Amino acid sequence: MTIRSVAIIGLGLLGGSIGLAVKARGLPVATTGWDRDASVRERAAARGLVGTVCETAEEAVTNADLVILCVPVGAMGDAARAIAPGLAPHAIVSDVGSSKAAVAEALAEALPGATVIPAHPVAGTEQSGPDAGFATLFAGRWCIITPPDRCDPEALAALSDFWTALGSKVELMDAAHHDLVLAVTSHIPHLIAYTIVGTASDLEDVTQSEVIKYSAGGFRDFTRIAASDPVMWRDVFLTNRQAVLEMLGRFTEDLTALQRAIRSGDGDTLFDLFTRTRAIRRAVIEQGQDDERPDFGREHGA
Amino acid sequence: MTIRSVAIIGLGLLGGSIGLAVKARGLPVATTGWDRDASVRERAAARGLVGTVCETAEEAVTNADLVILCVPVGAMGDAARAIAPGLAPHAIVSDVGSSKAAVAEALAEALPGATVIPAHPVAGTEQSGPDAGFATLFAGRWCIITPPDRCDPEALAALSDFWTALGSKVELMDAAHHDLVLAVTSHIPHLIAYTIVGTASDLEDVTQSEVIKYSAGGFRDFTRIAASDPVMWRDVFLTNRQAVLEMLGRFTEDLTALQRAIRSGDGDTLFDLFTRTRAIRRAVIEQGQDDERPDFGREHGA
Repeated sequence: MTIRSVAIIGLGLLGGSIGLAVKARGLPVATTGWDRDASVRERAAARGLVGTVCETAEEAVTNADLVILCVPVGAMGDAARAIAPGLAPHAIVSDVGSSKAAVAEALAEALPGATVIPAHPVAGTEQSGPDAGFATLFAGRWCIITPPDRCDPEALAALSDFWTALGSKVELMDAAHHDLVLAVTSHIPHLIAYTIVGTASDLEDVTQSEVIKYSAGGFRDFTRIAASDPVMWRDVFLTNRQAVLEMLGRFTEDLTALQRAIRSGDGDTLFDLFTRTRAIRRAVIEQGQDDERPDFGREHGA
Repeated sequence: MTIRSVAIIGLGLLGGSIGLAVKARGLPVATTGWDRDASVRERAAARGLVGTVCETAEEAVTNADLVILCVPVGAMGDAARAIAPGLAPHAIVSDVGSSKAAVAEALAEALPGATVIPAHPVAGTEQSGPDAGFATLFAGRWCIITPPDRCDPEALAALSDFWTALGSKVELMDAAHHDLVLAVTSHIPHLIAYTIVGTASDLEDVTQSEVIKYSAGGFRDFTRIAASDPVMWRDVFLTNRQAVLEMLGRFTEDLTALQRAIRSGDGDTLFDLFTRTRAIRRAVIEQGQDDERPDFGREHGA
């Protein structure tokens, strides 16, 4: 099975980047797309995110070998119901959502009998919408595919080849394990970034103006993550509740231990942790998962 | 009073960047420097971080109008005692430490009768050592000066002019207020970054290899901050204990409220916070305190 046509449902950062990557890499794949927001469809057409921007979801998927739902995870069920009437019998339905067990359940329920293979490209920026996408978003990043039990191996191979052709590295994983791993590497980092930015803007004895002026001390990094799409992230926390709460428990345990070390003046505990965490940074860079330039290569003195 | 010679004690990221900025901006200021580590002195001389790298702290400060201590805040007292014998009577002694009340106390005790004016340029990267500095580190960043009671206004003006000449914007602040503001904008962000990186590397059901592979979901940002100098940060937490613990209390209160919202499926509370935090990001960018490019301008698809 070879994928010759892809329908992209939802033309924001992820959906747009898939379309642009197909085009930039010259893949022999026709792209159609749809977004429920007419102004997004208009921008998508203007930017050429996909070959054909359609007026309905049904029309977009009619000839598609692969349909990728690029909508917030809480909207997957509705998106699946919207494409159902147009879906070809042989089509693979996949997605890009950040939580996988809940999405698998929603898609299986909305599309009984369809070939559903959820996936999650671990890539993004803090921006969203039809102007945010770019062709190299997935290059060198991992795409985690979470095939259901008794998944058709040919369909799985085709989906895997598609992501590889976009420049991704593909890994297969159980949906429940995905949700635990991503709770640590993505969901908790977002949650604590949103929290500290909220905390900082609500203080009485430090003004918001001071927080902004002196943000270069570290805080500004958190503001980037906390500028991510609110609907997307609300849905992630609501759909990956169990894993997020479990990992949050681990985090607060560790934070409490550090709090105790600070209170008691236990410098050795602090020093030991701060030394250990450096090694993780080195590994992230060695494995090509971050920019090695200091400060992510940010401009200084512009 | 005009500063014509500056002695830099400690030739790491901050000290080296001061020396390089003086040179790059062509300021009419002679620079000398010293570091207690002979190999750092050697690299500093090779890179030309200062005009003259001296063999002792005493020698470095002999003719200096301004001495800037660029050592971890826990080492300020020792550094001050090392320069004491060579210090000119008119010299201003300042520093770049991230906590200010404790440094003010340590310097006043070690240098009775000297003109001590603590300062904190809010700038840096995750790197440290004599190879990390660069001339534009302070451009457009704020330098907070915390003058003691009865500070000599001429000396204060001279120090302020020096930082302005390096490209900084200068703000005066009470040391106690500085410590509270920086607890929010720098110390707590570092503490929670160190914590989550530690938590992630200690899990049983998610491997370190998985954490690294899928770090592009947000975690990798925290690894950068958690790669900061361990000695420097140990000292910050030990010397700014009270403000850090106070702000940590506020943070964990807010985190607990979000935890409850996730557990109870209260999407509105999540959505409201996630929307509010976006405005802070916009303000940080508008005020020139961060790179406006998506993802800090990181390379994608290298």
